[in-house]
Amino acid sequence: MPSRRTFLQHSAVAAGSLALGRLAFADSARPAGATPDFWQVVAGRRSVRRYRPDPVPEADLTRILDAARSAPTSGNQQPWKFLVIRRPETIQQLREACVQRSLEYYDQSTDHATTREEARRAIDERLAGYFSAPVYIVVLTDNQAPYPDYNHWDGPLAAGFLTLAARALGYGTAFITDVIPEAVTRRVLRIPDRYTRVCITPLGVPDAWPAPPPKKPLADFIAYETL
Amino acid sequence: MPSRRTFLQHSAVAAGSLALGRLAFADSARPAGATPDFWQVVAGRRSVRRYRPDPVPEADLTRILDAARSAPTSGNQQPWKFLVIRRPETIQQLREACVQRSLEYYDQSTDHATTREEARRAIDERLAGYFSAPVYIVVLTDNQAPYPDYNHWDGPLAAGFLTLAARALGYGTAFITDVIPEAVTRRVLRIPDRYTRVCITPLGVPDAWPAPPPKKPLADFIAYETL
Repeated sequence: MPSRRTFLQHSAVAAGSLALGRLAFADSARPAGATPDFWQVVAGRRSVRRYRPDPVPEADLTRILDAARSAPTSGNQQPWKFLVIRRPETIQQLREACVQRSLEYYDQSTDHATTREEARRAIDERLAGYFSAPVYIVVLTDNQAPYPDYNHWDGPLAAGFLTLAARALGYGTAFITDVIPEAVTRRVLRIPDRYTRVCITPLGVPDAWPAPPPKKPLADFIAYETL
Repeated sequence: MPSRRTFLQHSAVAAGSLALGRLAFADSARPAGATPDFWQVVAGRRSVRRYRPDPVPEADLTRILDAARSAPTSGNQQPWKFLVIRRPETIQQLREACVQRSLEYYDQSTDHATTREEARRAIDERLAGYFSAPVYIVVLTDNQAPYPDYNHWDGPLAAGFLTLAARALGYGTAFITDVIPEAVTRRVLRIPDRYTRVCITPLGVPDAWPAPPPKKPLADFIAYETL
């Protein structure tokens, strides 16, 4: 069963409720030799759900992964593996497997507001943006690393650094866990049990930079001395 | 029992094996109005294990936490709480509780190479650097957030952003899990069960910026198309 979060996320995407806009930073991020300001990168990072087909040069990809692996890591264990997928046929396989997975939910349900063909089209449309990037990176941690009990911290740390480094070079990412399920990723890409998936992220030039989503007030997050 | 990692970490610290150095960036990070370069921040971040007593201005602290909470978050749930500890008495209590906890290990052991007083002094020395900062931030996630199953990603993501933002302003951090154990943090700071600790980090001006630790070659982390 999809979780409540999955449902809400899919609904939001399906409804096209994401306000899209263009950040001033988007166009100034990539002039040759530019040194992007740290605070602009942090403020400008977004979860991007639709991409342009422009390829990502090898040097950019390498720089992004180099930044990702410089994240803090428990006892310097560096348990990461970054699986880079660029072959269009593989991306297509991943997408089709996600469609099939969603159709399984349809088939299991008895209360159908749409025909199966309509459902398939809706699913396909919902996934189209997520699968429009030229590159996908599966962030993994190695269960055979020196201190695997600490991988659950190290994994997201590197993925977070990756999202920022991508932004610094003008690329969008999305820390995906549900839209492309772990089981699907694992099966299609034949990922050995030895590795745990942290997330999968598209990487590419955004179709547009989304406007910032609404956020809680900063004060809500901070407590001094006691909770 | 301390884990193998805990043991190795403590041994390394006790042996003073951390090469300490000063980065050129360290002195150029904080001139008024400077806009730190993203790549320098990433490359210059270190786990810092000894601090100067210089206070952290409120504006810097706020800016760091503001960056932390701008991390990616599942379904925009923002499940974070940052507990800021600055009262010297509380920091002292936390330290003493860590000493007591380590002494419990000593007391449970039957094979003593040192007297209890010597062990206490060694423990105290080992902890001194970690407890030399003017500020501690406990990064927490709220189990009552909308999608608590996703907190294990969101928590480290925010903590990672925090370490970078601190570096951008010239401060050191350390993503601590073992040296200041969760149980000790929870008891001394009376953290309700509702919150899960991600880590606790000191925040302050480093006594010195450590040299970069040895790292595996970048190529070891990257796989193309298949593992």
